[in-house]
Amino acid sequence: VSSAAANAEIIAVGSELLTPGKIDTNSLYLTGELNNLGVEVVRKMVVGDDRARLVQSIRDAAAQSQFVILSGGLGPTEDDLTRDAVAEALGRPLLFNQDICDWLEARFRSFGRKMAEVNKRQAYVVEGAEILHNDRGTAPGQWLAENGHILMLLPGPPRELKSMFGTLCLDRLRALLPPLAIRTRFYRVAGIGESDLDQIIAPIYTKYANPVTTILSTSGDIQIHLRARCSTEVEAEALLADLGGQVEAALGDRIYSNNGDPMEKVIGGLLRDQKASLSVAESLTGGMLGMRITSVARASDYFRGGFLTYTDEMKITQLGVPREVLETRTAVSEPVATAMAAGARSRTGSTYALSLTGSAGPGGEDDGHVWIGLATPDGVEARELRFPAGDRDRVRLFATNTALNLLRRKLCAL
Amino acid sequence: VSSAAANAEIIAVGSELLTPGKIDTNSLYLTGELNNLGVEVVRKMVVGDDRARLVQSIRDAAAQSQFVILSGGLGPTEDDLTRDAVAEALGRPLLFNQDICDWLEARFRSFGRKMAEVNKRQAYVVEGAEILHNDRGTAPGQWLAENGHILMLLPGPPRELKSMFGTLCLDRLRALLPPLAIRTRFYRVAGIGESDLDQIIAPIYTKYANPVTTILSTSGDIQIHLRARCSTEVEAEALLADLGGQVEAALGDRIYSNNGDPMEKVIGGLLRDQKASLSVAESLTGGMLGMRITSVARASDYFRGGFLTYTDEMKITQLGVPREVLETRTAVSEPVATAMAAGARSRTGSTYALSLTGSAGPGGEDDGHVWIGLATPDGVEARELRFPAGDRDRVRLFATNTALNLLRRKLCAL
Repeated sequence: VSSAAANAEIIAVGSELLTPGKIDTNSLYLTGELNNLGVEVVRKMVVGDDRARLVQSIRDAAAQSQFVILSGGLGPTEDDLTRDAVAEALGRPLLFNQDICDWLEARFRSFGRKMAEVNKRQAYVVEGAEILHNDRGTAPGQWLAENGHILMLLPGPPRELKSMFGTLCLDRLRALLPPLAIRTRFYRVAGIGESDLDQIIAPIYTKYANPVTTILSTSGDIQIHLRARCSTEVEAEALLADLGGQVEAALGDRIYSNNGDPMEKVIGGLLRDQKASLSVAESLTGGMLGMRITSVARASDYFRGGFLTYTDEMKITQLGVPREVLETRTAVSEPVATAMAAGARSRTGSTYALSLTGSAGPGGEDDGHVWIGLATPDGVEARELRFPAGDRDRVRLFATNTALNLLRRKLCAL
Repeated sequence: VSSAAANAEIIAVGSELLTPGKIDTNSLYLTGELNNLGVEVVRKMVVGDDRARLVQSIRDAAAQSQFVILSGGLGPTEDDLTRDAVAEALGRPLLFNQDICDWLEARFRSFGRKMAEVNKRQAYVVEGAEILHNDRGTAPGQWLAENGHILMLLPGPPRELKSMFGTLCLDRLRALLPPLAIRTRFYRVAGIGESDLDQIIAPIYTKYANPVTTILSTSGDIQIHLRARCSTEVEAEALLADLGGQVEAALGDRIYSNNGDPMEKVIGGLLRDQKASLSVAESLTGGMLGMRITSVARASDYFRGGFLTYTDEMKITQLGVPREVLETRTAVSEPVATAMAAGARSRTGSTYALSLTGSAGPGGEDDGHVWIGLATPDGVEARELRFPAGDRDRVRLFATNTALNLLRRKLCAL
């Protein structure tokens, strides 16, 4: 199998994967693992419990692609067609394997149950196949060579498939492929829109076919993945350092993470290093900011807590926001954001406090209007944001992202 | 096309859909719409930018299935192979269509841009195809009949595909299919595990092939979908009422929603109806409970706010939890949970208050141990929960689900 042309097809078997709510996640896992070996996935299929279509699909794939991975259809019922379909597609007989049968019977015995006759179907093996032991279920896998092409029959449940592929197939595949070193770098960026970011770094990364650059964006949080493929690790790291260095220089402190850590974790690390503490005061986000901060283990090292002041009355009684400011300026205003942050800081005794007030909508005239407050030992500042109205969850997520980034920049500037 | 056998294949075109992070969501949408017409999806494929494989895949699908839907590969670049591949698979020429070309040029002009020569590729149509207008992008779709089978060429971007399929393909498909009425019912259930629930209702729903029953479960929230398919709406509704009535009788008030509404919305409705208000006091969940309650629009009708008391000191100063109770009983205990709920209720003046205290982990001996408090006009109660330690997010989600369900049962019992 030559490296340049190594390719694979993945066939998922089972009618349940052809319903509107089901995703074949096995193929995503397999694609990642195959790519790491330098193998490209050229076609994926999902085939229902339909023997003729399955036989034809297997035959086509095995004729055209070096590796064919089948997932599912190895259970004990009539619907489990993969063994029979592979045997028919390759024109080989299915042979009964006494060792598998004994193992299955012992497995059932160990659970205090007697094996049903139907389970003997799982003891049939395509002639010439190596058996792949299943350490997490009853369906054994199979590994087959046919005219220099390889077929793998793997169980459908993701935890069984991942264990079998990871422990039994990866090494076999590596032995057939030239050595390949893959190295990745995973930046996260905040405080810039995706198109503005692309305008800055596209002139850099488009010059490189290797490393491959992928950009993903969700609600104000952008991820940049660099992936270098070389025959040695040293070469791959050198490529990453070359491209990565240019990306870092171009984006500066808009990069908040160079190892994929989320913002909450980065902020937690900065607060812990500075022996500083944090509290929050939330209105429109109703707890999302606190929830995100405490999604990181050991957040109690720096997080004191906070106030969900959803009503004006709560802002007055719990945070000391002056009633006349709420009445004259409304709750979505700079003085309310700063008073909330200052109130949270003084009432908790934390080093820093973040506040969020705004209107997420839908239904109001001011929807999408948000004020962020940040109280520090040096004073209080505020930032105004405006989002397109309409998507409540998106406004809230974007607002918390922006608030966390405001704090990060303050912590980094120290 | 006969109803019993109506089947379809979906082919997504584009190498970007063969990467580890990409899901072909179009096929999920299309499967749902086709199922609603009584058409079963029998195979799905994702094919990269590889003309030979694509031609073969189209030829196989068109020979075997009544409907073949292709998505993607209709753009203006060399990589956009769908038009050429369909033409080759069916042995028909591609014809230049001046109307499309004029429309494309006008579209570019309206954005103040001149159309690039390469965009003329999008003006080619397979001989005999009807053109499907794209109201959201530049790539027109095509509708083709071949030996009584139908091929649809649709654009890849989901918003373009959905609009084109919904406005131009659904009616054409309906005209080819016998009438079919689909009716669904969507229950949500809390306070019971999935296997216990299945033991109760499996003897009921397994007697029915129609309606079809689907059960989905995530962290203490279970959804039961019933889907009836008949030739008339009256028949479908009668089947749903028959099966649904038995499911409702078996599960009683563990069903919290019979229209798919999430728990937060159900509770909001109950509070609004009873002109009651709510506040929260959160420790381990750090704001998740408040965030969930305020994820519903107009939550300000009943939600006052709350307290994120992550430290012992915050529990003492903000909620009046006695210091000696924290010292003698620890923060994860019944008296702390009840004092937190009572403190939140008295300090906000709300009708009800929910509290959550516990250890989400990882790293502590008591991980997965949670106490929930509920303060009402009649007093305070508490509930203890223990989860398998290890998954911080799962413990927090399960804890908030259980807390919300405790409140719901109280509100329903009134």
